[in-house]
Amino acid sequence: MINPMVHKMKLSEIARLINGTLKGVDCDISGISNLDSQTVGTVAYADNKKNLDILVKSSVSALIIPGNFECTEKPVILVDDPKLAFSKIIVYFSPYKPYPETIFPHVFIEGTVTLGKGVTILPFTSIMDEAEIGDHTVIYSQVFIGKRVKIGKNCVIKAGVKIDDETVIGDHCIIHHNTVIGGDGFGYIQKDGKNIKLPQIGNIVIENDVEIGACVTIDRAAMGSTVIGEGTKIDNLVQIAHNVKIGANSIIVAQVGIAGSTTLGRNCIISGQVGIVDHVKIGDGVVIMAQSGIEGGTIESKKVLLGSPARDFMEQKRIYASLPKLPELVKRVTQLEKEIHDKNN
Amino acid sequence: MINPMVHKMKLSEIARLINGTLKGVDCDISGISNLDSQTVGTVAYADNKKNLDILVKSSVSALIIPGNFECTEKPVILVDDPKLAFSKIIVYFSPYKPYPETIFPHVFIEGTVTLGKGVTILPFTSIMDEAEIGDHTVIYSQVFIGKRVKIGKNCVIKAGVKIDDETVIGDHCIIHHNTVIGGDGFGYIQKDGKNIKLPQIGNIVIENDVEIGACVTIDRAAMGSTVIGEGTKIDNLVQIAHNVKIGANSIIVAQVGIAGSTTLGRNCIISGQVGIVDHVKIGDGVVIMAQSGIEGGTIESKKVLLGSPARDFMEQKRIYASLPKLPELVKRVTQLEKEIHDKNN
Amino acid sequence: MINPMVHKMKLSEIARLINGTLKGVDCDISGISNLDSQTVGTVAYADNKKNLDILVKSSVSALIIPGNFECTEKPVILVDDPKLAFSKIIVYFSPYKPYPETIFPHVFIEGTVTLGKGVTILPFTSIMDEAEIGDHTVIYSQVFIGKRVKIGKNCVIKAGVKIDDETVIGDHCIIHHNTVIGGDGFGYIQKDGKNIKLPQIGNIVIENDVEIGACVTIDRAAMGSTVIGEGTKIDNLVQIAHNVKIGANSIIVAQVGIAGSTTLGRNCIISGQVGIVDHVKIGDGVVIMAQSGIEGGTIESKKVLLGSPARDFMEQKRIYASLPKLPELVKRVTQLEKEIHDKNN
Repeated sequence: MINPMVHKMKLSEIARLINGTLKGVDCDISGISNLDSQTVGTVAYADNKKNLDILVKSSVSALIIPGNFECTEKPVILVDDPKLAFSKIIVYFSPYKPYPETIFPHVFIEGTVTLGKGVTILPFTSIMDEAEIGDHTVIYSQVFIGKRVKIGKNCVIKAGVKIDDETVIGDHCIIHHNTVIGGDGFGYIQKDGKNIKLPQIGNIVIENDVEIGACVTIDRAAMGSTVIGEGTKIDNLVQIAHNVKIGANSIIVAQVGIAGSTTLGRNCIISGQVGIVDHVKIGDGVVIMAQSGIEGGTIESKKVLLGSPARDFMEQKRIYASLPKLPELVKRVTQLEKEIHDKNN
Repeated sequence: MINPMVHKMKLSEIARLINGTLKGVDCDISGISNLDSQTVGTVAYADNKKNLDILVKSSVSALIIPGNFECTEKPVILVDDPKLAFSKIIVYFSPYKPYPETIFPHVFIEGTVTLGKGVTILPFTSIMDEAEIGDHTVIYSQVFIGKRVKIGKNCVIKAGVKIDDETVIGDHCIIHHNTVIGGDGFGYIQKDGKNIKLPQIGNIVIENDVEIGACVTIDRAAMGSTVIGEGTKIDNLVQIAHNVKIGANSIIVAQVGIAGSTTLGRNCIISGQVGIVDHVKIGDGVVIMAQSGIEGGTIESKKVLLGSPARDFMEQKRIYASLPKLPELVKRVTQLEKEIHDKNN
Repeated sequence: MINPMVHKMKLSEIARLINGTLKGVDCDISGISNLDSQTVGTVAYADNKKNLDILVKSSVSALIIPGNFECTEKPVILVDDPKLAFSKIIVYFSPYKPYPETIFPHVFIEGTVTLGKGVTILPFTSIMDEAEIGDHTVIYSQVFIGKRVKIGKNCVIKAGVKIDDETVIGDHCIIHHNTVIGGDGFGYIQKDGKNIKLPQIGNIVIENDVEIGACVTIDRAAMGSTVIGEGTKIDNLVQIAHNVKIGANSIIVAQVGIAGSTTLGRNCIISGQVGIVDHVKIGDGVVIMAQSGIEGGTIESKKVLLGSPARDFMEQKRIYASLPKLPELVKRVTQLEKEIHDKNN
């Protein structure tokens, strides 16, 4: 633990917070543990028997487990969903404390900006004309918020984020450090060997409950809007090009690149370093495995894809399994040809 | 449209601006449309018959089309190059308005800095000793401009860009948010299991009319200069290592990585997520398809490459088309061997 | 050279600085050259005969060469390790001069911050409560240093770096521009089609002598610490996820992505654009070639891997060499089947 004893709670108090049933002796809990590291005085969760066995033998003082599990070695809290229950108590042991709801010194706010109640703004942030910031939103240092940007309630905008003119951001969004919302889309006309810039006059709309990692780049639309759907989560260093539309509750892992005008459905999982070319239409619930490349066209809902170029996951796995046989296969075919040729002569 | 009625023009006025011929009834135009979305009161362009058919049936009020096309359903403007003509009128309907040519408060400028006429600098930007900024250049918030940096005329440096000492940037360049020009090249000597830093004392030269996306990293040379040629356009999250030299009017798409001392010719297109190792020599007009990997050596002008490792585009396409047959091919060869062996016995 | 005559030294003085033996006539040296470009009045190094031949014919005025090499054409300095010797003199000809050890205006430092001796802080940097900065550390503009961050002695933190709460950084570290140390790990529970955030309450520990490139993202641990080992060097645009642990003296090249809880040994080399999934265990001295993908499991020490999915380097090279034969191989097998079938009938 980076800051032990940040907080101390009774195990029975934790049981109440997560609507669970305490079995065994009540005790003090001063932190949390997981499968990677365990400490005395902490609570961990297990949602399968294998992990329960590991944690029962560890130094943790209590466990959160499913209602139908047995455990007599340590005090336990029985719940329906141990991981979900655990997620609710983590925050009580966090060393990260919020900043006061105040405007720090050295902030530049143009006169026509509208600030909600209880807004926090740290030093060296600029907020330009006609921008609107919702209630209880926290804006860290060195953030730039352009003209007519709208940011909803209860958002957290981390240090160094740049949000350019006309961007619209919903409520309960988190944007991590140095992310850029509103660079120009990458659009040129090639004429006589030169690249003539196509002005990008659209904007970006980020719906409620979106989380965006660090150093992500989302480009504004050529016309219309680039859209990130409600509840979608984007990891670090992802590139989202102009006019992309991402559906609700999707997961975009680190270093993915999505090219212009591609649309993504709801509840998709796009794994790390995937590349998707422009104008692809991807259905709901699609899973694309890491480092895959989508060349174009339409991807039906629920497909699972792998490889560059991407194919059906199982087909691609069979190809990968066959590849080590290829060098020998070339020799085997040459040998067969020789045998048949020898026989024919 | 994110901000409807930003501007209203007569169609005949647009025809004059783009040197086109109006056919049909003049009307008011208050915005633009494209193939993705159309609105009443807007103008769109079509440069082929298929798109013309789509747009004729849409709600757009007027079209920009080639001089040899026919259209009687809607008023049209006839021009030589509809896309180019269209690009010239987009900006009239843009909601993005320039900042006043002024130095905002909270700017740090050391005494020996030279500022041109009509320079705009937004709050919380630092400009260090002996830097020179050309006329009418716009520098957004939280930009860092190091010692002896030279930036030309009519440039736009977006928020959070960091330009370290000794960098030279030409005229009419655009650099998007949080891009870094001038990190150290990644150079070490490995000695007794440790990595000893090789000081990087070169600089970076960016020629005229270059546009660089957001969160791009361009490293300064070990010695000499890293060079981005005139008119070259670089998308977001691209890595350009020390001593790379990129020719004029090339296109580098998002998340490309180019390793040290590689040289690129003129009018190349390097697609998204391509990786190019160090010391490669690439000719003019080379096209490298998305996610390809260039392992080394020399690439002749006009080559089109695909794959990791990259091969000739057509050869690689044939390999990709054959791969799904590989798992079955292994079985077929085993069967053939069995048949021949059975017959021989 | 970007700034000729920055410094002028006698060749004999250079020989003394690098403990070498001067052979030939002493002369003035005003800069350095390398294989890419040479100038009169400079010194270069050669550590093999081929490079020596090239440089002997060039305009450089002197050479640094191994003790067992012969050269009569130019004055030379004989040393054990020419590259290492050369690295020590580069800095004397650097145009990059340090900033004065002072706190510039427009810096925000909360009252409980502890600053060492001789600290440099440039404008528009924020340092929050209880942070500690070691002696002679240099912090550029627009840096954010969160609560309780500890930074050691003689570090350089370039412009725009964001270091969030609780991060611990050792001595002699260099962090390049706009890098983010301390974004939240990417952790969610998927429940009823929604993504519920798992609070990330761990931190990041960066040991001594680490160098980190520009626009790198290192996420804080879910619990415990994300760790970058002593002497490890990380290039630009790299993603290091929560709870990753990287051993000492490893090299991570640009645009690599390492997913959660993966551990890396000492003296590994992870080449550009490699992706490594979560929970992989990688031994010491492992080399992973560019664009490779590690799917999971355990990688033994000293392995050399290539490809996506990655295989043993030599095996993968044989597969790559066989692939161009695949389209023809399919035809050859079909032909064999036909011949055997014809004969059987």
